[in-house]
Amino acid sequence: MINSGRFLAVVFKKVMTTNEIAARLVDLCRKGDFETAQKELFAEDAISIEPYASPVFEKETKGLDKILEKGHKFDSMVQEMHTLEVSDPLVAANSFAATMRMDVTMKEKGRMDMAELCVYKVKDGKITSEEFFI
Amino acid sequence: MINSGRFLAVVFKKVMTTNEIAARLVDLCRKGDFETAQKELFAEDAISIEPYASPVFEKETKGLDKILEKGHKFDSMVQEMHTLEVSDPLVAANSFAATMRMDVTMKEKGRMDMAELCVYKVKDGKITSEEFFI
Repeated sequence: MINSGRFLAVVFKKVMTTNEIAARLVDLCRKGDFETAQKELFAEDAISIEPYASPVFEKETKGLDKILEKGHKFDSMVQEMHTLEVSDPLVAANSFAATMRMDVTMKEKGRMDMAELCVYKVKDGKITSEEFFI
Repeated sequence: MINSGRFLAVVFKKVMTTNEIAARLVDLCRKGDFETAQKELFAEDAISIEPYASPVFEKETKGLDKILEKGHKFDSMVQEMHTLEVSDPLVAANSFAATMRMDVTMKEKGRMDMAELCVYKVKDGKITSEEFFI
């Protein structure tokens, strides 16, 4: 009985729709707050997939903890973010996409202006995978 | 020398940009003319990837000829297309996405209203893969 409040909270917690998740993700990414987006919207066993493996990032990163680490690593490589633009999302039933443009100066590589197509899969109100296309 | 005209035509043939390919694909799909889109815009070795394998379609279809066959098979299953809506595309450097909504009556399965996120990869002015997400 001591946990009945929590039990009810769990039972009645509203599962976010794909539209709601897409809107929240775009909102947070526009603010550059990728970490909140990941902690709030990603499943514990989510997967992050790069266009290709590089010396910096593996092709696939599995698990929210490793995805957060990947984010910290990226942040540590950034000298200055000049522009960050995120499109409105295109939303299907259990997936959505948005483009993200970054004009950024990296500590090692210098300034680059890049756009990626970001595709997300959703299950049970959480993002289960993100995949980036150049 | 006899082929010099053809040689020049090949050399100077303009490679379509990703923006141009995306606009043309969306235009043709809105008319329901998927076959022209595939013949005109897809690479010979293009791949088509479904969300999952089904009794009707394999997870992956390889090669333009097989993709055209897949289209004919789908067409043969359709009783009536009530609505076909294709979004404007989101375009990155070598990829783009659009959502496609079909309200369609299938001969076996009856009427269904479905939306898919369609993601395309581009190389050398041709679509090299299409992937559908539900």
